[in-house]
Amino acid sequence: MSRWTYSFGEGAADGEGSQTELLGGKGANLAEMTRLGIPVPPGFTISTDCCAQILSNDGTWPDELADQIELGMAAIERASGRRFGDAADPLLVSVRSGAAVSMPGMMDTVLNLGLNEATLPGLAAAGNERFAWDSYRRLIQMFGDVVLGIPHDAFESLLHAARQETGVQSDNELDVASLKQLVSRYKDLVLNETGAPFPSEPKEQLRLAIDAVFLSWNVPRAVKYRQLNDIRGLKGTAVNIQAMVFGNLGDTSATGVCFTRNPSTGEDQFYGEFLQNAQGEDVVAGIRTPQPIDQIDSILPGMLQQLLDIKARLETHYRDMQDIEFTVQEETLYMLQTRAGKRTTQAAVRVAVEMASSKLIDREEALQRIAPSTLDQLLHPAFDRAAVRNVAAKGLPASPGAACGQVVFDPADAEEWHARGEAVILVRSETSPEDIGGMHVAQGILTSRGGMTSHAAVVARGMGTCCIAGCSDLAIDSTSKTAKLGATSIKEGDWISLDGSTGEVMLGMVPTVAPTLSGDFAQLMEWADKARRLKVRTNADTPEDAERARGFGAEGIGLCRTEHMFFGEDRIAAVRRMILADNDRQRQAALAELLPLQRADFAGIFSAMAGLPVTVRLLDPPLHEFLPHEPAQQEELARSMGWDVESIAGRVEELSELNPMLGLRGCRLGLMHPEIYDMQVQAIFEAAGLCQSRGIEALPEIMVPLVGTRAELATIRERIEKAEPDLRASAGFEGPMLIGTMIEVPRAALTAGEIAEVADFFSFGTNDLTQMGLGLSRDDTAPMIRAYIDAGIYDKDPFASLDTAGIGSLVEQATEHGRAARPGLKVGICGEHGGDPASVHFFHGCGLDYVSCSPFRVPIARLAAAQAAIQERLRQQL
Amino acid sequence: MSRWTYSFGEGAADGEGSQTELLGGKGANLAEMTRLGIPVPPGFTISTDCCAQILSNDGTWPDELADQIELGMAAIERASGRRFGDAADPLLVSVRSGAAVSMPGMMDTVLNLGLNEATLPGLAAAGNERFAWDSYRRLIQMFGDVVLGIPHDAFESLLHAARQETGVQSDNELDVASLKQLVSRYKDLVLNETGAPFPSEPKEQLRLAIDAVFLSWNVPRAVKYRQLNDIRGLKGTAVNIQAMVFGNLGDTSATGVCFTRNPSTGEDQFYGEFLQNAQGEDVVAGIRTPQPIDQIDSILPGMLQQLLDIKARLETHYRDMQDIEFTVQEETLYMLQTRAGKRTTQAAVRVAVEMASSKLIDREEALQRIAPSTLDQLLHPAFDRAAVRNVAAKGLPASPGAACGQVVFDPADAEEWHARGEAVILVRSETSPEDIGGMHVAQGILTSRGGMTSHAAVVARGMGTCCIAGCSDLAIDSTSKTAKLGATSIKEGDWISLDGSTGEVMLGMVPTVAPTLSGDFAQLMEWADKARRLKVRTNADTPEDAERARGFGAEGIGLCRTEHMFFGEDRIAAVRRMILADNDRQRQAALAELLPLQRADFAGIFSAMAGLPVTVRLLDPPLHEFLPHEPAQQEELARSMGWDVESIAGRVEELSELNPMLGLRGCRLGLMHPEIYDMQVQAIFEAAGLCQSRGIEALPEIMVPLVGTRAELATIRERIEKAEPDLRASAGFEGPMLIGTMIEVPRAALTAGEIAEVADFFSFGTNDLTQMGLGLSRDDTAPMIRAYIDAGIYDKDPFASLDTAGIGSLVEQATEHGRAARPGLKVGICGEHGGDPASVHFFHGCGLDYVSCSPFRVPIARLAAAQAAIQERLRQQL
Repeated sequence: MSRWTYSFGEGAADGEGSQTELLGGKGANLAEMTRLGIPVPPGFTISTDCCAQILSNDGTWPDELADQIELGMAAIERASGRRFGDAADPLLVSVRSGAAVSMPGMMDTVLNLGLNEATLPGLAAAGNERFAWDSYRRLIQMFGDVVLGIPHDAFESLLHAARQETGVQSDNELDVASLKQLVSRYKDLVLNETGAPFPSEPKEQLRLAIDAVFLSWNVPRAVKYRQLNDIRGLKGTAVNIQAMVFGNLGDTSATGVCFTRNPSTGEDQFYGEFLQNAQGEDVVAGIRTPQPIDQIDSILPGMLQQLLDIKARLETHYRDMQDIEFTVQEETLYMLQTRAGKRTTQAAVRVAVEMASSKLIDREEALQRIAPSTLDQLLHPAFDRAAVRNVAAKGLPASPGAACGQVVFDPADAEEWHARGEAVILVRSETSPEDIGGMHVAQGILTSRGGMTSHAAVVARGMGTCCIAGCSDLAIDSTSKTAKLGATSIKEGDWISLDGSTGEVMLGMVPTVAPTLSGDFAQLMEWADKARRLKVRTNADTPEDAERARGFGAEGIGLCRTEHMFFGEDRIAAVRRMILADNDRQRQAALAELLPLQRADFAGIFSAMAGLPVTVRLLDPPLHEFLPHEPAQQEELARSMGWDVESIAGRVEELSELNPMLGLRGCRLGLMHPEIYDMQVQAIFEAAGLCQSRGIEALPEIMVPLVGTRAELATIRERIEKAEPDLRASAGFEGPMLIGTMIEVPRAALTAGEIAEVADFFSFGTNDLTQMGLGLSRDDTAPMIRAYIDAGIYDKDPFASLDTAGIGSLVEQATEHGRAARPGLKVGICGEHGGDPASVHFFHGCGLDYVSCSPFRVPIARLAAAQAAIQERLRQQL
Repeated sequence: MSRWTYSFGEGAADGEGSQTELLGGKGANLAEMTRLGIPVPPGFTISTDCCAQILSNDGTWPDELADQIELGMAAIERASGRRFGDAADPLLVSVRSGAAVSMPGMMDTVLNLGLNEATLPGLAAAGNERFAWDSYRRLIQMFGDVVLGIPHDAFESLLHAARQETGVQSDNELDVASLKQLVSRYKDLVLNETGAPFPSEPKEQLRLAIDAVFLSWNVPRAVKYRQLNDIRGLKGTAVNIQAMVFGNLGDTSATGVCFTRNPSTGEDQFYGEFLQNAQGEDVVAGIRTPQPIDQIDSILPGMLQQLLDIKARLETHYRDMQDIEFTVQEETLYMLQTRAGKRTTQAAVRVAVEMASSKLIDREEALQRIAPSTLDQLLHPAFDRAAVRNVAAKGLPASPGAACGQVVFDPADAEEWHARGEAVILVRSETSPEDIGGMHVAQGILTSRGGMTSHAAVVARGMGTCCIAGCSDLAIDSTSKTAKLGATSIKEGDWISLDGSTGEVMLGMVPTVAPTLSGDFAQLMEWADKARRLKVRTNADTPEDAERARGFGAEGIGLCRTEHMFFGEDRIAAVRRMILADNDRQRQAALAELLPLQRADFAGIFSAMAGLPVTVRLLDPPLHEFLPHEPAQQEELARSMGWDVESIAGRVEELSELNPMLGLRGCRLGLMHPEIYDMQVQAIFEAAGLCQSRGIEALPEIMVPLVGTRAELATIRERIEKAEPDLRASAGFEGPMLIGTMIEVPRAALTAGEIAEVADFFSFGTNDLTQMGLGLSRDDTAPMIRAYIDAGIYDKDPFASLDTAGIGSLVEQATEHGRAARPGLKVGICGEHGGDPASVHFFHGCGLDYVSCSPFRVPIARLAAAQAAIQERLRQQL
């Protein structure tokens, strides 16, 4: 015989707190509180297994369920000293849903079951007649809505009419006569709508309510909520049947909601509010203003201490901040709920650190308590939580932060507006490397196309600039410099605000507050650094980024993209001359111009990272990215360079590719035009020499991109090594100079053993590895990826979180074969996934040496790496 | 002590015929012929090992070499009865190069060594004085050129002057006095050019000549030749020192070259020619016209029988057709060379089949004798071998065949010209699916961009149309309808000829001859079919292609691309309406129009392949490929459809992608727009039902393209299976209907175990697997691939021949994991590589069930599959 019900009451319980999967969060915690001797109204929980069973059987109950409910009700009757359906002193019960994961407001609840014309006088005797009729009115309304499916509005209209007829403002003021008439009208409504009278039999009420709660698991809003919140793998909801207690039985009754610590700041201070002579739903309804919890003794002397005692017992027991609900019925305190309290990241960090400091939890547990991705909130300016948000559209939260500015549609305009002191938001269909100047000065970036790893998103995260990408509700008309944004229109100069953490685009200026990196945060990070094995580097292309990342704890640069430097105003002309060169002499001349600039770039970055390794990736993107594609820009370039526009257009056409992602870029460029890499390598040696002469330890590492075969890397390596003695001599650099490669082409991962023979290190370029391995252009498939996630074809965006089964298997194979061929091979990862906690866990498991991510994700990666190490240790202990 | 020399003579030899690697082809066969008792002038061979040793030691000889040469010379002296440097009866020797692989004319030879003023009278006594002085003149000229590096022209000028002075036309006519004077002038030239007299000491002559031949291994023309002919891994050349025999000692002397069978047709007929009183070089020089070999008895009675005896012995011994050189010195026959004779493919097939039929070789060996790729020559019309070729440019031999036609630059023009009966060559920078009409009517296709697997190449091979792709010497100016082709210009209407087997583009009309598929070919194929394990299917999109391929022995269709059908004139409009549809109703209406057309397509193909499986791939390419991209075409479409041009342009823009290869195509389309696949699946069932009602066995297999995850295939499979009962009922189809997938995304290969759970079969799409796995767009990287091959970074074009280490490992993994998850999973390959012999070997090794290739490559694949099976068996016997 299967067991479906679990009782609690009189200090004992069948279930316990750890059984949230079986009993739901609410049921498990009611059982646990009962076991702890905390006053809880008696009741029982029907398990989630039962829900699954019923849902898969078209709503039919398993055989034993009715009997077990009967036994459960008998236990409640015993514990409460009342009987269900008893006319003299009736037991009333609530029926509440409660899944393993909290889904607030998504599923149904029915209160006051057991009330009918026969038991009403008994309830009135316990309290008063008005209370009894109001309770009955509430039962019919709630039951009618939840169980019988009668539109809520139908009851509300009758209630509204009753208030008008009696000339009162609020429901509380309805007198017994009015309530009696209202109950009668409610019953007529039920009869008309369902063709049957309102069920008066208490057991029938109970059975119908339980059914309704189970079935509410699959109502559309609940399904949608689980989708949106990525809640998977649950069997269903549990159902809690519990004796009613009433906070509205007079002035010595009350109801309240508290947090054991401040959920905004994390301060260890009992925090909450209560309402005298009220029920829980009144707190939610917000008709009366609740009082702060520390004033409760003014109406219920000694009650605060009772609550503080319970607070202390719950925190000590659960070893976490709790969110509790209580009711006082005629001076007697009942706890109705406890659960881990939701809190801001700031609060979470403080609570974890303080609990660890007071030995309530150990440091490893403190580290486990923080979701790494939430640290974002501590690092970027944030919108004032109190501010009103006028959300006009939503896109992908591509780069966190809060930005307000005036709309501009053109990067050149952005630079111009910024020059005269304006704050601007750059609004584009998508961005390209040519837009870098405008992106750099913008407060935030908003694009209508592109995914989480589109150019806009990657560059913005690198800069720490707020960005919302792929906002499909945005339609730009660049000629008129206007755009449609959801239902409204915006034009150049309009103020908008972007929330990079939620993807919300808001009209007007939403005020922001600056972040404070608290001492708790620093403490937590220190613990994380001790716990983790993976090193954490950063992706940074400028000394400023490098310094910022170092401040966030980066232990070197895992990816320094040299191409971003090529777009600088002082060098793009030379870059273009180099590309457009007719002959070797012209090209060498252009490269000679670039050499000192590139050398200065590197020297600045090496200095900012003094004593830490800096992996410089040689030029990667296809050359046409550096040339203008619009006729007008081409004409301007032609004028400024004294060329004819046709040859420029011709060269652009010649360099254009059908699939540039799979074209002439990376080391292919370096092999077809070796002089470019020659210049970059020379600049690296000279910059390192310059640092050395200033007493700064430079640790450069040369990284060759897009290698697919051993021969590609070997050829480039040979050329560098041939030049090396002369370069070292003239640059005066004596330190080590590693030469390694990105592993970003699937073939490189598949033949990593061969490639490792000529590589000092591997760095997985998981962006491209994902693009090629999944055959998925990140710039083209963002809407498809979203549709795939909605349809359950993808679990998650493979550009945000590594596809471990597919791309991950390449990472594993390549690491294993690479290390087998070259023991001690240094292996890292520098794709976007380096800052994604789930991916960091995977990389830890692969035995990588480091992850590298954008500066603002460095703390996230540090914490995720610590959690990965801790969880590995815990698993090994099992 | 290392052994460097291997003697032969007097019926015995140190070496033997199998030692071609050590002794070179010439040396090994001289040894072998000597062992067989065939008359060969005595001599010895210095090994290729010695060459390698000398080349790696800057030309220094190994210690023992000089002594071993001395011993070798002593053996020649013994066998010939003459002594080297003997004044009375001098031994003269030749020094000839001879590597393991024949490199005709690439390396050096010196004849008549041992001749000087002292030995000349002795030679004159053996023959006559003029012969002796002419031999001396030849020695100085050859030695001066080859050994001393004096320009050949310098000697030729003196020779020319001598002819003029004496008033004769040819060198033969120079008398003794003139020759004496010429020798004297030659010696002056040597003294002036080298600062030293011509070396008269025979041993010094020999030493210097040997050195020169060794060093000729690395002269630029030899290195280039090996590169061009993909000759790798050789150690160097051997050197053959052999007693001179003279075919120019009078009317009972002669020299000749023969094939043991006709090298053009393969007929078993002794075939060759000879010159009376002449040396080998005279045959080559072509001054006198040689006589057919069957006339030799007219001057040397009984000699033909001697040659026929030797022919018989050599063929029986070598069990292959031989190419032999002989000299008759005063009625005595000497063989100077034998080697496997080069032959046309037609001849190769006939020789192999006839030798097997006469039990000279077994059938397996006959099959091994034919290079599968050469079968191409038998299947396409070929240029008349006698015709003059005016080659203007060279591109990639993308699709074999010979085509002549008038140049047109536009597909629409091609159709128009074709309609009025012209033969056209379509000349484009590259082709796109929109060009299909023009491609179909063209005799041949020439493109300036794109590789062996570009659109033009793939489509042309599928059609069996001759195509040269990636002709970088072609620059088209489409506005003026002219083009530069190498050094010349061509305009619309000019005649050009394309050789699809060599990539040569020729000006004018080169005459062609039609192919005859001989009975020998059919016999060979029958043997191949018995030997092979791999099945061979074809890639075909029309009933015509299917029938042709069936005629070539295809055992089903491995890839039927439905998109090619969408471009037909009668359906492209409906396709476009389907894509441009604003709403579901419009789209369904367009699809309803397409259904009967698609059903008829499939019914035709199933009928052509009655009883054999037909794998139909559901729609694969991105939708924008079906829409016009040029404004003018868009306007036309707008007019014809009654749409406004802006919405068409807008939709094209909306559908355009930065990297369409990695965009919304394949099953992604099918998941985002399920109604398209619904229509196609319905058409497949209905076509199969139609066939069944006509008594034709249809064996359709539904193939889902571009699957990357199990869920993609599972979702589509579920939808098909849900519809299947109704579809079967209404279509009246009862046969099996497999549902499988292409494995073309690397992730699919990496997670093949999961995918196999929902796939009835796998078919590797190695084109895309190569593109994604190598990160290489075939449309963009053709020039890079060529540069990589030249630089030795790639061994070969990975789109032509499978990259076994990288992409091959994915094929292996996926096959293994797929079969582990689903035992007996049918696995095939339908990429271009299915017709490449080396790749077919690899697929055989992987245990695949079948390969599928374009119709004209079916026989190639059949033979390659047979060879793979035979070689596997031979390896297992070891």
